[in-house]
Parts: sequence; C-alpha cells; structure tokens
Amino acid sequence: MSLSHLDETGRARMVDVSDKAVTARIAKAQGKLVCATETLALVIEGRTPKGAVISTAELAGIMAAKQTSNLIPLCHPLALSKVAVVIAVNHDLPGFDITAEVKTTSQTGVEMEALTAVSVAGLTLYDMLKAVDKTMRIEGIEVTAKSGGKSDW
Amino acid sequence: MSLSHLDETGRARMVDVSDKAVTARIAKAQGKLVCATETLALVIEGRTPKGAVISTAELAGIMAAKQTSNLIPLCHPLALSKVAVVIAVNHDLPGFDITAEVKTTSQTGVEMEALTAVSVAGLTLYDMLKAVDKTMRIEGIEVTAKSGGKSDW
Amino acid sequence: MSLSHLDETGRARMVDVSDKAVTARIAKAQGKLVCATETLALVIEGRTPKGAVISTAELAGIMAAKQTSNLIPLCHPLALSKVAVVIAVNHDLPGFDITAEVKTTSQTGVEMEALTAVSVAGLTLYDMLKAVDKTMRIEGIEVTAKSGGKSDW
Amino acid sequence: MSLSHLDETGRARMVDVSDKAVTARIAKAQGKLVCATETLALVIEGRTPKGAVISTAELAGIMAAKQTSNLIPLCHPLALSKVAVVIAVNHDLPGFDITAEVKTTSQTGVEMEALTAVSVAGLTLYDMLKAVDKTMRIEGIEVTAKSGGKSDW
Amino acid sequence: MSLSHLDETGRARMVDVSDKAVTARIAKAQGKLVCATETLALVIEGRTPKGAVISTAELAGIMAAKQTSNLIPLCHPLALSKVAVVIAVNHDLPGFDITAEVKTTSQTGVEMEALTAVSVAGLTLYDMLKAVDKTMRIEGIEVTAKSGGKSDW
Amino acid sequence: MSLSHLDETGRARMVDVSDKAVTARIAKAQGKLVCATETLALVIEGRTPKGAVISTAELAGIMAAKQTSNLIPLCHPLALSKVAVVIAVNHDLPGFDITAEVKTTSQTGVEMEALTAVSVAGLTLYDMLKAVDKTMRIEGIEVTAKSGGKSDW
Repeated sequence: MSLSHLDETGRARMVDVSDKAVTARIAKAQGKLVCATETLALVIEGRTPKGAVISTAELAGIMAAKQTSNLIPLCHPLALSKVAVVIAVNHDLPGFDITAEVKTTSQTGVEMEALTAVSVAGLTLYDMLKAVDKTMRIEGIEVTAKSGGKSDW
Repeated sequence: MSLSHLDETGRARMVDVSDKAVTARIAKAQGKLVCATETLALVIEGRTPKGAVISTAELAGIMAAKQTSNLIPLCHPLALSKVAVVIAVNHDLPGFDITAEVKTTSQTGVEMEALTAVSVAGLTLYDMLKAVDKTMRIEGIEVTAKSGGKSDW
Repeated sequence: MSLSHLDETGRARMVDVSDKAVTARIAKAQGKLVCATETLALVIEGRTPKGAVISTAELAGIMAAKQTSNLIPLCHPLALSKVAVVIAVNHDLPGFDITAEVKTTSQTGVEMEALTAVSVAGLTLYDMLKAVDKTMRIEGIEVTAKSGGKSDW
Repeated sequence: MSLSHLDETGRARMVDVSDKAVTARIAKAQGKLVCATETLALVIEGRTPKGAVISTAELAGIMAAKQTSNLIPLCHPLALSKVAVVIAVNHDLPGFDITAEVKTTSQTGVEMEALTAVSVAGLTLYDMLKAVDKTMRIEGIEVTAKSGGKSDW
Repeated sequence: MSLSHLDETGRARMVDVSDKAVTARIAKAQGKLVCATETLALVIEGRTPKGAVISTAELAGIMAAKQTSNLIPLCHPLALSKVAVVIAVNHDLPGFDITAEVKTTSQTGVEMEALTAVSVAGLTLYDMLKAVDKTMRIEGIEVTAKSGGKSDW
Repeated sequence: MSLSHLDETGRARMVDVSDKAVTARIAKAQGKLVCATETLALVIEGRTPKGAVISTAELAGIMAAKQTSNLIPLCHPLALSKVAVVIAVNHDLPGFDITAEVKTTSQTGVEMEALTAVSVAGLTLYDMLKAVDKTMRIEGIEVTAKSGGKSDW
C-alpha cells in the first residue's frame, strides 16, 4: 500500500485523474464547535440574533468549499453543482453541529470540499463568538458519506 | 454581554478597530489529526517519505494563514510578520499534533490566522492520507496563547 | 412562488444544478458610467490616451467575470468559454456604455458573470477618473439577453 | 488637468502613494437595486425570510470590499479597519437601498472599497432574486462621503 | 496572420472556445534557475536540507498552475486533471532545472498553466535562496510539448 | 551560512520580520520575452495594435505583484505603495524588455513582488502571441536594484 499523493520518488504530486470516469459524486462531512453554555444561550436568546451568527457561518462554509483547490495544495480544481452547509444548535454538547454536503459531476470526489466547508463554518462561528468565550474548540471533523467514485461509503 | 460581530440590530459586521492601538500581537493554536496506526506507519517508515506528507501540510497551513480574511467573512485583512506551522507525529494518538504561531503588528489579533493555519494543515494531511485511511478525524482545534491585545491568555 | 436561493427553512443555499442539462449558455449585460463632459473630453482628446482608460477597464471586467463565484456567495464555480467586454464613449450621456457577453457550456447560466464584468469595468473606469471628477455614478446595470437555459429572453 | 492613473506616456499605472501621509480615512458609498413590487413582497413577507436575502448580500458586500485591490487593477492593497454594509427595503423605489462605509489608516483612500462593497451587495441581491424577477436593475452607485485625504467631501 | 487575442478593432479579448472540441490535452514546459555554485552546495549538502527548498518550490508551482486564469488576463478558467512539477539539481548550470506537465480534458490547451507552474516554482526557489545569493537569474522558460489541440508539437 | 527560509530542523518557514524596521523599500527587476522577428512586426505594425498586447501584459504584471504573497509560499503579505511595469520593444533581441518597480513602507523588501510582476507580464505576452509563434522563450528574469533594507544593491 502506498500514498497516492506521493510519486515513486516520494515527491508530493496531484494525482492524475485524466483516465477516471466523469460521474456524479457526492460527499458529506460533519464537525462541531464546542462552547460554553452561556455562549450558546447568547446566540439563541435575548438580543443576540441566532440567525446572524449561524447564517454567516453557513455562508462562509459554502464560499470556502469553492476555495478548496486553492487551499489544499494537491486538490483538483473542479466545478461544483451543489454546496449546502447546515449548522444546528446542540444543547447537550453544548455547542453547534455542522454538516456539509457537496456535489459535482467530475473525475474526482469532493470529500475535501465538504471537509473544508465544515472547517471554515466552524472557524467562522469561533470568530463571531471569540469575544465572549475563550474555551471554544472545534472537534470531530470527518467525512460521513461519499458516493459516485470507485469506493462508496 | 453581547457579541462584537453583531451590531445593535443584530446585523453581522466587521468590528471597527480604527481606534485600537497598533501593537505587536502573537497567537498560537493547536489541533490534531487522528488516524489509524497503519497510516502513521506508512508516513513514518518504508518507501513513504515522512517529509513530503508533513512538509506539504505545513506549507499549506502557512499559505492558508495568509488567506484568513478571505475565508472568514468578518476578519480584517492585515499584514503578517510571521507564520509558523509545525506538525509532529504522535504515536499515542495515533496521529499528528499540529501547532501554529502567527505574529503581526496591527490593530487586531491573529487568533483566526493561527486557527486557520492549523485547520488547513489538518485538511491537507487528511487529503494526502485519505486514499489509505477512511477513519481519520480532525480534533481539538483551539487557541492556546494570545498576547499583545487587551486580553492576553 | 418562492426564492430558489433559500431552502424550505429560509436558509441561503447554492441551488443544486446536478440534474440540469449541460448546454451552451450565453448571457449579455449592460451598464453605464455617467461622468462630467469635461471628464469625457479628457479621456478622448489631448494627451490623455483614450485607449489606456478604456482598455484597462475592459480587461478588469474580463478578469472579474472569472472571479464571479468567489464574489457572489451562492454562484456556482464554472468554466467559461468566452468573456468579452466593450466600453464605448457616449457623448449624449455623457459617459460610457459598458456591455459584456459571457459564454459557457455548463449546467447553469452566466448572467451573474456578465453583470459582474460590467460592474467591475464600471468601477475601474470610476477608479481611473475619480481624481478629476467627483460627480460620477454607475447606472443601469442589467441583463439584456440570456439563452441556453430553461428560460431564454 | 490630467489623469493620475496614466503616466506621461499614457500608460496605465498604480499611483505612487509612498510620500502620502498615513491618516485615518473613511469613505461611504450608496447604490440601489430596483425590482418589481412582487419581488419586494416576496422578500419581506410570507415564507421567504427577509433576513436571509438581505444578510447574504450584506455579507457578500463586506467580503468583496476586501477583494477590491484584486478586482480594480490600479488599486493599492491595504489593511481595512472597518467595513459595514447596510441594505434597507425601499417601498417607493420599489427595491433596496444599499450603503457601505469603509475605514482604513493608510496612505490612500477607500472610495473604491466602498463602491465595490455596494456593487457586489447589489449583484448578490440580484443573484438571489433573479429566478423570480427579470426586470431588476442596479442603479445610482456613487460615493457619498470621503474624509481623511487631501480632498474631503 | 493576426493575433487571436485581439478582435478586429484591436481590443484585447478572451478567445471564444465554445465551438472547440472537448479533448484530452497535455502541455509541458521547462525553465531554469541559475545560481552560484556555493548556493547549490548549500541546498544539496550540510545542514540545509535539499528536500525543503526543492519540495516547497515544486508545491508552489503546482498551486500556481491552478491560479493561471486569475493571473493571465485572457486565459480561460478550466478544470485540471494533473499538474506535476519536478525540480532537479543541475551542477553544470550551476542551478536547477524545472519542468512541469499539466493535463486537462477541455476546450482549450494548458500551455499557460505549465509555463505558470515553471515560473512560480522558479520564483519560489529564488525567494528561498535570495538571502545567500544575489546573482540568481531565471532563464529559458518555454513550452516543450503540447498535444490534444489542433496543433501538436 | 544558512538559508533564512529553513529553520534549524530544515523545515520551510516564513522568516519572522517582527523586529525589523518599518522603512521605505524599493525593488526593481527585469526580464525579456524573446520571439520571432515576424511576431514583433505583427505587434508593432499593420492592423495588430501594439498598444493592446503591451498594455494588457503591463496590467497583468501590476495585478500579479499584488498576488505575490499568495503565490510564493513564504512571502509576507504587505501593502504596496507603487507598482509600475514597462514593456519596450527590442528589435535587436528580437523581443520585449520587461521592467518592474515596486515600493512599500514595511518590514520586508519587495524583490519577489518585482520579479513576480516581470514574470507574469512575460507570461501574458507569451499568451497573447502564442497562436502565431511557437519559438518564444522568457529569459533573464533578475533583480536589478534594491534599497531600503539592510543590504542595498
């Protein structure tokens, strides 16, 4: 077994996908921002509009998905046919659950786009809440589903 | 207590830092990529050069720090005087520990730059290893130190 | 009737175009920069070369069309097969008429690319002339033709 | 009188601001999106959340201000200390009034940043509403105030 | 004979490739960085790891290929299926030989992407070595092979 | 002697310039595009406007200087107070001489910005002329002057 992103000399490379089929591909990813109960309360209630914090972070995630190939050195630039990011309040955490779904019709998958969307949505939540909470952490960023390539899961 | 990134009408806004002092500011952040023991072994030993995987991810983190204000909607664009990203193998995890340090001389801090560097370094590790490991997760992204602003920690 | 860019919960989203046909699509847009008669005279005559002002703005419009999906949050990134921007002096205005035409072969249209090209061409004219004219306004930015999608006009 | 963005040979150039004073500078700009009464009603009432359309466009305007020097060829890259974009429903138009305010402490002004914020906010409104309204136009983009440079107005 | 990037009025334009066939296309380019013998020695031997200098420059070249259409005004944005950059020490020069190969399946070729990869890889070598060598020059950047379009060579 | 862009472990790093003085800094660079005599004739005479080819390439060089820190991994992002690119026809070459001058007031120099401007101007000339000339080469890219830092030359 070897790493596809290194060539036989160990040099980092963009994988050649020229001969891969153009297929409809979907990837989903998730992650969470853990914060203090008081921070969550601030976002949900009172004069702090839940909408603005969450919708700003969702939008940042969508826009970041489109920057994936500029951020991840060996990612292929590709057209995306859908990017959705949903952030939900999770009282048990306490914090926020972040999920992303990305679609393309292309020669390569979009896991990295989904993961990038989740990551930047989480960073944006962090940015908007950092003035009131110094305990926040981003946790559990992972791919939850992938289809359309050679190996679905 | 209220959120600095929302104005009195609850509208998302870039905080006005015009009247803040121009000071030397430093922020440090950390995070980790958890992977299978076998994946770590592949990176460390045999024909898979540890250097290429880790150095690619470190470089991606450095470059991402410079994109922070393009990714996080309400971040201020600013000049950075130092960005360092260090990735270390952690056998106990198993996985990788990622740390970043960012410096600026400016009117606002660089926590988001440090967090973005860590996040994108982690995403790049994920990208380079995803062909051999579908169990990876990015965990524990947080700020570990901050100085030069009103509240050091 | 509802807005395609909002989902059933009112959340902003990138429309899923996965199932739309890949077709040749064209969009045209126009706009104008209104300025003082003296400003127009400066651009046309004497030692101020008409070419440099107009050609710089045309080029800026072409390049901006390629940035559309980075600027408009819910726009799909896509390959463009043609971008043309033409700026003409309009003595009656007085000012400049700006038109753009964009082509793609893709699952979604390019109105936003054409409008972005016109807008940034207008902003660039403004930038180059603002030292001599504080009365300028950008007016009448609109789509003038669209074909290749479900609804041509 | 001559154009500052052209040198003595008529070549487009970035103005040399090396010898200009570093001062606090503010610029304000405005513009509007004219749409059908029914479109405005859709945004304000019923199941179409006013917030999502307007807040997405405001955020796009803020982010675009940070891209100004990448879009306008001869603009100087500079740090911004504040960007604010406010979109208000205007029943008389009918449509939306868009205003932007940008601050910097720098050697050059930020009119172009304010104008770019207004323009991209307008384009984003257009994008989100174009599926239901083919009559929209962006109008009246202009600078309304400027201070901190040699010529305030 | 006339220039494809100028229209009949001499205006710069992006060539309309809408009617060109979508084919697999490959381009290769090369260039070199000439430096002092001592500089080359520093990179190869002793405590200066050859790997870090060369791998950083190779990665920069790969990432730059993806920025080509943002840098070259009349280049078409397109999906890339492979980018490879290889830098080899050349003792005879003395200096470094840089080669790049880019693949796409698209309506237009990728010479500019290959040339941009080589150029930015060379600039990155320059950047990393400039503190120790003020005699460096980038030389001989050219296309060495092209296939998949109307004229192969 | 060691390389400033590698730390003591040989890891690529952005040099820490936090403690360097903020001074006015200037860098100049040059390069050339060598082409066939017939290509030069096309640009200069007849129906092919010299202006459009040369002015497009000059503008591309100016805009590229502003992208330097996004292209060169270890470059610092900084504000630029002047970027000028001049392209002159050179009949003896035959080809084009490209020069760039960049100014900043900052903690680090702008050689890389000047070199990037020259490189991208050369690439843009290549792009606009490649349909008529397959013999072109970019040659002799180097820094010609630097002032304002610790070592002027």
